[in-house]
Amino acid sequence: MAEKPSIPKGTRDFNPLEMARRNHIFDTIRKIFKSHGYLPIETPAMEQLTSLMGKYGEEGDRLLFKVLNSGDFKKKISGEQFESTPPGKLGTMISEKGLRYDLTVPFARYVVQHRSDITFPFKRYQIQPVWRADRPQRGRYREFYQCDVDVIGSDSLLNEHELVSIMDRVFSELGLKVVIRMNNRKVLLGLVEALGIPERMTDVTVAMDKLEKVGLEKVMEELRGKGVGEEVLKRLQPVLLQKGSNRENLQFLEDMIAGSAAGKSGVNEVRELLNTLEKDDIGAEVRFDLTLARGLSYYTGTIFEVQSTEMEIGSICGGGRYDDLTGIFGLEGVSGVGVSFGADRIYDVMLQLERFPGEGELDTRLLFVNFGTREVTHILPVLRKLRQAGIASELYPEAAKMKKQMAYAHARGIPYVALMGEQEINDGFITLKEMESGRQERVTPDDLPERLSR
Amino acid sequence: MAEKPSIPKGTRDFNPLEMARRNHIFDTIRKIFKSHGYLPIETPAMEQLTSLMGKYGEEGDRLLFKVLNSGDFKKKISGEQFESTPPGKLGTMISEKGLRYDLTVPFARYVVQHRSDITFPFKRYQIQPVWRADRPQRGRYREFYQCDVDVIGSDSLLNEHELVSIMDRVFSELGLKVVIRMNNRKVLLGLVEALGIPERMTDVTVAMDKLEKVGLEKVMEELRGKGVGEEVLKRLQPVLLQKGSNRENLQFLEDMIAGSAAGKSGVNEVRELLNTLEKDDIGAEVRFDLTLARGLSYYTGTIFEVQSTEMEIGSICGGGRYDDLTGIFGLEGVSGVGVSFGADRIYDVMLQLERFPGEGELDTRLLFVNFGTREVTHILPVLRKLRQAGIASELYPEAAKMKKQMAYAHARGIPYVALMGEQEINDGFITLKEMESGRQERVTPDDLPERLSR
Repeated sequence: MAEKPSIPKGTRDFNPLEMARRNHIFDTIRKIFKSHGYLPIETPAMEQLTSLMGKYGEEGDRLLFKVLNSGDFKKKISGEQFESTPPGKLGTMISEKGLRYDLTVPFARYVVQHRSDITFPFKRYQIQPVWRADRPQRGRYREFYQCDVDVIGSDSLLNEHELVSIMDRVFSELGLKVVIRMNNRKVLLGLVEALGIPERMTDVTVAMDKLEKVGLEKVMEELRGKGVGEEVLKRLQPVLLQKGSNRENLQFLEDMIAGSAAGKSGVNEVRELLNTLEKDDIGAEVRFDLTLARGLSYYTGTIFEVQSTEMEIGSICGGGRYDDLTGIFGLEGVSGVGVSFGADRIYDVMLQLERFPGEGELDTRLLFVNFGTREVTHILPVLRKLRQAGIASELYPEAAKMKKQMAYAHARGIPYVALMGEQEINDGFITLKEMESGRQERVTPDDLPERLSR
Repeated sequence: MAEKPSIPKGTRDFNPLEMARRNHIFDTIRKIFKSHGYLPIETPAMEQLTSLMGKYGEEGDRLLFKVLNSGDFKKKISGEQFESTPPGKLGTMISEKGLRYDLTVPFARYVVQHRSDITFPFKRYQIQPVWRADRPQRGRYREFYQCDVDVIGSDSLLNEHELVSIMDRVFSELGLKVVIRMNNRKVLLGLVEALGIPERMTDVTVAMDKLEKVGLEKVMEELRGKGVGEEVLKRLQPVLLQKGSNRENLQFLEDMIAGSAAGKSGVNEVRELLNTLEKDDIGAEVRFDLTLARGLSYYTGTIFEVQSTEMEIGSICGGGRYDDLTGIFGLEGVSGVGVSFGADRIYDVMLQLERFPGEGELDTRLLFVNFGTREVTHILPVLRKLRQAGIASELYPEAAKMKKQMAYAHARGIPYVALMGEQEINDGFITLKEMESGRQERVTPDDLPERLSR
């Protein structure tokens, strides 16, 4: 016997129960995206490696899955070249294609490539898997789904408001309590400018991003290590400790960064967004959080991050505004904003908090017991009618022992079993058995669809 | 400015209109699968290369996309080895993973790997993309979707009947007229046995498979070239010319292959399936076609192929029974039967025959014109209610010129535009404009959802 087969580490099979739960998440997200007027697109799993390389930093390049050129990929490379070329470089010589790493860069590529066919502002959503050669660990996979929603070609803050509305609706429909943290990169820029260390934007945001995880002292230590002076740290500290209301935080910041043009513009954007949000009926808490930074460098305005308030698991959704994403593909000056829902983490939260609803209504409702060929011919037309009425139903494929057929219904969680034996056929009815209660009743074939759709 | 970006040849982007049409096909197929009690699974895009190699013949191995090992993939290979090893072999030394080539082998792998958790008979469906390094051409892509439905762990012919019911329902719901061609590999085996050339099974079926495309003479010529004698060809000819009813074809064959045990068993299976089909109300023509052979070697019983009767495009669905698919992964004696729908070809047929329905009901129904911040605050609660009622609606994100906003509604094909300016707000109503007719009416905010769901 062959070795038991397996799948690559960091990847997963999904069984029917897991599929039902995952689809519940995807369907909910898709429904909310659609109700807000967003349109679906899909892009290929493989992109040109040149479209992907250099877009995610050095680490990203390393984590890209490269697809070996088909045919004679080694033709133009000598043994000597093979030995002397480092693997990263050699990989690009024998691979032209790579698996997509996220949905943002393919979206930027799509917009530039198809710009003459697109109506702007372009509101698109995209739900597809992405691949990263990360070290697999609990909650981190090498193949996972992203659910992205973006609007590109409009710099109105109403788009930011709409994304908050989408995040609020999605988590509300999924039954999860969340806090939507919000900040603005211009505010952060204003902050470092006010502190007199504008060149330290990255150091400060990277350190601040860890505040929740490591605490104030460690953040200070990290910045000290990077050579930020004590005087500056002393002025930064109250920002990190700020725990007031959104309005209080905004006022505090406005006073602090009054001298920075970028900072002022950021404060105005935050104020406008807060004003709009107050006019709308957002259920989730939206928190203006001065310490939210987000790692990705392409954000230029508002940034978002969503966390569960019922379970500690990190961010389950995040995004922000980027003023020049399509610039990497040669189309300058197109502003966009979007967020990405992490379906796998949302799945983990819902599973742990037991928020998945019961069995889906399209799972099999009824199993006909198979008594043999003669009975089957009477069952077929009834079965056909049920299925046409959208009631998922099955006929056990073999005239096996009753015990075996009932065991199948039980294992599959099928709620009703129909008996249509010789006696029933002669009398013109079906014995319908409810599996859980064991209760039996007589139903005519014509009444069956109606009875089961209750 | 950078070069205009592109995607790998043989792959495609799908825009929102194409997505809507593709989803119409996928949703229909999924609904019919579910109504017959089949359950969804998904498997990873990447499989171990060892799971894929050798499963699709020599050509298949060549067409597999290999994923380069991450990290230092060249560590254990010398320059000399690199030069002396042929690309096919070298590929497997630097790649452990490959992209899935179809859904059948991953399904077999899944069943063996998870067999202790599966209730048999296992009725599963799977709708996912597959990748093949084929030469791209019209209608043939390097990334395309397959929609597979299989039942494994039951050798009852009722499963074959159920698959016919599924194929019939799918194409009927899609509005396509088709013929379901059916044959049986045992019948074919009986035929070559009766002709006295059992060792020529492959030659005969490969040649016969081309009958429709190349005609009788070419088939005869091919077999002559392979050394099949004139006497045998003379006896084979009437089989290829057979054009009778299913019952007549069956009788003809039964007489011819009476001496072959396999043939007899095949004839009995065909008869039983035809008997069951006659008891059911199948709309499509099911044709017992002696010349249907299907290339794949793993079929052992019934085989199917579906063709459009309205357009010539080759097979749009096909499959059959396999008695030992899981054997390749070490689990012997598990019989299964399944068919695969070719979504891309079905798409091409429906597009050409103009069978796609109109715009989806979840596309944006209404655009609110943006007159400015003050009006927006009145629009937000109305918008929220519409979206919660499942009516996809948008607010133009900027207070742009009316002309620009109307142009957006027009380009997006949004049927209604709502005007809620100062006057309307004061008077407590909304001016609703139907784009096509230009007709305007006054609606109160409360009545709007009801008005639009008509």
